[in-house]
Amino acid sequence: MVRALALSAALMAATPVLAEDGKEAVTTFTLDNSMDVVVVEDHRAPVVQHMVWYRAGSADEPIGSSGVAHFLEHLLFKGTDTLAPGEFSATVAANGGNDNAFTSYDYTAYFQRVAADRLELMMQMESDRMRNIRLSEDDIATERDVILEERNQRTDNNPRALFGEQMNAAQYLNHRYGVPIIGWRHEMETLDMEDALSFYQTHYAPNNAILVVTGDVDPDEVRSLADQYYGVIPANPDLPERIRSQEPPQTAERRLTYKDPRVSQPYVQRSYLAPERDPGAQEKAAALFLLAELLGGGTTSYLNEKLQFEDQVVTYAGAFYRGVSLDDTTFDLLVVPAEGVSLQEAEDAMDRVVAEFIAEGVNEEDLDRIKMQLRASQTYARDNVDGIGNRYGRALTSGLTVEDVQAWPDVLQAVTGDEIIAAAREVLQLESSVTGWLMKDDEVTQ
Amino acid sequence: MVRALALSAALMAATPVLAEDGKEAVTTFTLDNSMDVVVVEDHRAPVVQHMVWYRAGSADEPIGSSGVAHFLEHLLFKGTDTLAPGEFSATVAANGGNDNAFTSYDYTAYFQRVAADRLELMMQMESDRMRNIRLSEDDIATERDVILEERNQRTDNNPRALFGEQMNAAQYLNHRYGVPIIGWRHEMETLDMEDALSFYQTHYAPNNAILVVTGDVDPDEVRSLADQYYGVIPANPDLPERIRSQEPPQTAERRLTYKDPRVSQPYVQRSYLAPERDPGAQEKAAALFLLAELLGGGTTSYLNEKLQFEDQVVTYAGAFYRGVSLDDTTFDLLVVPAEGVSLQEAEDAMDRVVAEFIAEGVNEEDLDRIKMQLRASQTYARDNVDGIGNRYGRALTSGLTVEDVQAWPDVLQAVTGDEIIAAAREVLQLESSVTGWLMKDDEVTQ
Repeated sequence: MVRALALSAALMAATPVLAEDGKEAVTTFTLDNSMDVVVVEDHRAPVVQHMVWYRAGSADEPIGSSGVAHFLEHLLFKGTDTLAPGEFSATVAANGGNDNAFTSYDYTAYFQRVAADRLELMMQMESDRMRNIRLSEDDIATERDVILEERNQRTDNNPRALFGEQMNAAQYLNHRYGVPIIGWRHEMETLDMEDALSFYQTHYAPNNAILVVTGDVDPDEVRSLADQYYGVIPANPDLPERIRSQEPPQTAERRLTYKDPRVSQPYVQRSYLAPERDPGAQEKAAALFLLAELLGGGTTSYLNEKLQFEDQVVTYAGAFYRGVSLDDTTFDLLVVPAEGVSLQEAEDAMDRVVAEFIAEGVNEEDLDRIKMQLRASQTYARDNVDGIGNRYGRALTSGLTVEDVQAWPDVLQAVTGDEIIAAAREVLQLESSVTGWLMKDDEVTQ
Repeated sequence: MVRALALSAALMAATPVLAEDGKEAVTTFTLDNSMDVVVVEDHRAPVVQHMVWYRAGSADEPIGSSGVAHFLEHLLFKGTDTLAPGEFSATVAANGGNDNAFTSYDYTAYFQRVAADRLELMMQMESDRMRNIRLSEDDIATERDVILEERNQRTDNNPRALFGEQMNAAQYLNHRYGVPIIGWRHEMETLDMEDALSFYQTHYAPNNAILVVTGDVDPDEVRSLADQYYGVIPANPDLPERIRSQEPPQTAERRLTYKDPRVSQPYVQRSYLAPERDPGAQEKAAALFLLAELLGGGTTSYLNEKLQFEDQVVTYAGAFYRGVSLDDTTFDLLVVPAEGVSLQEAEDAMDRVVAEFIAEGVNEEDLDRIKMQLRASQTYARDNVDGIGNRYGRALTSGLTVEDVQAWPDVLQAVTGDEIIAAAREVLQLESSVTGWLMKDDEVTQ
């Protein structure tokens, strides 16, 4: 959950530093206290992005304290022994930069984007709040109201978000991915000082953190500063092993119906439990990624060609796969029925067309076109210094390595049509799926 | 999960001791270390049932360690400093008694039934294993195989049980009641010494236990023995508050289909989230209890009269409500379609008849008949010494008091037809329900 949108990237003229193999110039090392460091050089402009990623997200929360990871993220903008509440962001701004933070299932991350010569100041402040936050009961009460209002705006006022929560809860029988990142309201209301500090003391430590620095920096200088500011913080010897509750075999097809008078556009969503990208074994995830592109990635995709243009039974069709995840993720299909078409008809049409896709096999021209688009977009992604840091931070907190991140484009290019069909047959199983209908009321057609 | 059936009750001639108000003669007190004691006198035969109930069940397990409460229950039959593995039960048997244990969501209980003059020996041994178990790695490996085989027999070889697991997992979005008591197999396989001892050290302590003694005993003597054997064990000062993750609002009707070639009899089950009996406030639970009796309690119930005999669309209809539960429980309906009737038709018929029942209101003659049957069965229940201890132990580990247990028959008698209809309207909401189809294969009719 990004606390606020931080958009400031000015496109630069030159290209970033690339190693001989055409990949980004990445330097990695580990401090004596086991803190990992990733440096990506990009000298096109005198700016730096400084990020600290913790291997702790909402799926690492204790039972009954949902939302505490995100709550703590907010509280890290309060004071420390040496910084008054709010002084952190004010100092970044006074130095011409901006800062923010975000929380997801598998990580919490803090970042500043600032002129490259201010990197030391950022490290000084960020390392300070890794161990020294000081919270008052007033901070707790105020910020709890803030996250409750955030839930109000993002979720409770949004039928699609509420529907998504129920879908997730039905998808995961045992894993914490079934609990929303922002938290269940009734549990958020009970979050207190002890919950926040307990999560902080357990998970916020150098041996559970990854420093990602991208921009106009020299890796040796980054190492020297990192040693000075982060390297002196003792590792937490009691850091728990990161074990999550895994899913049992999913053996029963699930369906749910969510009705809300605020729904303006009913739709059908199908969610399948799906494997994630694993270190050194990203092939199946790459096949699923391409499957999503082929089926529902844009107006020329298979589902849209058949359902939107030929049969005219939907006004939108999409397929989604998020491969970066520590544990099992989902593969999702979504269809919005056209006027006069029922949700059942739209769902039946979707199932029919997916079955046809699998029976026909992959059209090689479509696959080649998508691979070419990916090559282009990956090159473009390098131009955005925010994106590079996010890519490495997300991957490393989700169990992947720098090598996996760098190999991913080639893994994608190597996927064959047969592998895509095999992955579809394996993953698109009703037994491990949830089918949801988002409805305005009892009317079956709009 | 009862480790083995322990049936030995010989019906006695006389009636148990009753207090002036016609209720059981119950004496309660608390030891200095906060251990609760309940004594129910019954001098009809020189036998005693000695039970220790821990306020710790599968819903108190840590994330990822499902099954550890039941695993530990097995391990308590291994050795202590002074008892060799197996010696506990052998000693009970050598004294002419029998013993066993069982685990549920909210409790784990150990009991012996033996001649009344052997009570002291039982207390000596049971208090010993409250704090002094000694486990070898061999015990862990052996007993883990035993519980895995137990899961195999009870669950994995039983499509109805597997279906029930998926129903529960879909019913509870956030609460641990969605996880099976015996555990998910993949988590049971990882249970080790540390998991078992951690659960033991956290939850097994006198201030988390209830001693229930029923039979031919004198309360003063029980108190004296309890002081001597249990009273000397220090309370655990770090006993955690018993907080469970509660459900968020359930807003989406769920459905699931479980197919298994071993299914001989397909059926439809509907499960609704329902309130449990709360201390001092059992009225709504009593209304639900009577609702289940009226709708599906036997062949003369409303669902059976309409569906089995009039319309002949089902061969069985049932309604179930378990009110003794620490947190939200379920109200369940079940219909088995007759030959040639589809699951959808049976479900539709069930929904139609339940709606008719609510619209018509309660037939007062039916209600009176059921209340009279309950009076009779409650009197009969007192004749079984096993039943009395279970009734108090279950209630007390589920947040109820002795007064609640004793008030329950009168609360049931006071429920009106209007209250039953109001409870039905409140609880039988599709938004908080799961509808499951247990099927052999894709055939819709059998």
